[in-house]
Amino acid sequence: MWMAELATRSGLSVPTIKYYLREGLLPAGVAIGATRAVYDETHVHRLRLIRALTEVAGMSLETVREVLAGIADADNLHDAVGSAHTRLGTLPERPASPSSMQVVDDLLRRQEWELDQDSPQRSVLAHSLDTLAALDFPLDVTILDLYATAMAGVAAAEVASVLAEDRDQSAERAVIGTVLQEPVLLAIRRIAQENASRTLRDGP
Amino acid sequence: MWMAELATRSGLSVPTIKYYLREGLLPAGVAIGATRAVYDETHVHRLRLIRALTEVAGMSLETVREVLAGIADADNLHDAVGSAHTRLGTLPERPASPSSMQVVDDLLRRQEWELDQDSPQRSVLAHSLDTLAALDFPLDVTILDLYATAMAGVAAAEVASVLAEDRDQSAERAVIGTVLQEPVLLAIRRIAQENASRTLRDGP
Repeated sequence: MWMAELATRSGLSVPTIKYYLREGLLPAGVAIGATRAVYDETHVHRLRLIRALTEVAGMSLETVREVLAGIADADNLHDAVGSAHTRLGTLPERPASPSSMQVVDDLLRRQEWELDQDSPQRSVLAHSLDTLAALDFPLDVTILDLYATAMAGVAAAEVASVLAEDRDQSAERAVIGTVLQEPVLLAIRRIAQENASRTLRDGP
Repeated sequence: MWMAELATRSGLSVPTIKYYLREGLLPAGVAIGATRAVYDETHVHRLRLIRALTEVAGMSLETVREVLAGIADADNLHDAVGSAHTRLGTLPERPASPSSMQVVDDLLRRQEWELDQDSPQRSVLAHSLDTLAALDFPLDVTILDLYATAMAGVAAAEVASVLAEDRDQSAERAVIGTVLQEPVLLAIRRIAQENASRTLRDGP
């Protein structure tokens, strides 16, 4: 297809697509003569992915570039997921308190979970706990364990669901799943909370 | 305490605090003479809450104002939670597809959940499903049901945990819990996914 159809199919403008080409976020098409090129379904797919990561997940183009590179470089699904997490997780500006880091490490031990010492997720989680504590709203360890148990079951099914024939495709689906399914999970949590509070008020 | 101590305790600057006073986000202190006023723990608490909602949850001051008003106006915990959700949930710019709205309604029916017809969460959820479908990554209904079952258990415990003696305090804790615990849940999900993919690679 020509550039014009690529724009229609992806929902992006021609100048934006040309910008992504120059930035190397989109692979070049097959050159037909000196000034024209044709594109295929992989280009449509890549543009939709970039659009979702920027518009839905709110990523900067720099982060998108790193996430795409992480998918291309990863040796296996686990590394692709880990690489995406490392790039998605931004270390908080202020270090988390030692006591919250300890709470996180205790949780990991109870769940028999492993995490690289330099994984941003430890600090991200500890920092969120600090924020709640500063509001005099410390999170009960019971709730943390409940989250962990619920997410262990969910994550196992999620990871199994992204397995595809193709390694790159699996890794891409893992990244999409991690980032783009978050709004789905959070919307369902809010709906569930609304129903839980109604049940509390009206009885089951 | 004087304004200076309020600034130290809340971690906000004096000009910011004065701005919140002018905007009515922070109740006035008790006037001591013509130009000075004293503040108490309720002011510290309110400022920490505003800071968490803006800095952690990324809310605009206008949304913070609406959320605080919703807490103050709600007749009961359920209405406070519902009011917070209505204000927190921004309707997507484009309407969701009828097929995704149907998927959401089917999910609600299977879970025996009720939701106001005009609740933004229906559209928010349906819109997230549309985004995934546009990426050729439609979410399996099995995963939706898994999310719903996991969140039903989590939400019941969360709502029970915010119950306090005081109605306003309960409502405030419900809002904080809804918004500020999201990063905790998402960080735990990412950790769980990393471990699920490692298990898949290395065996249990």
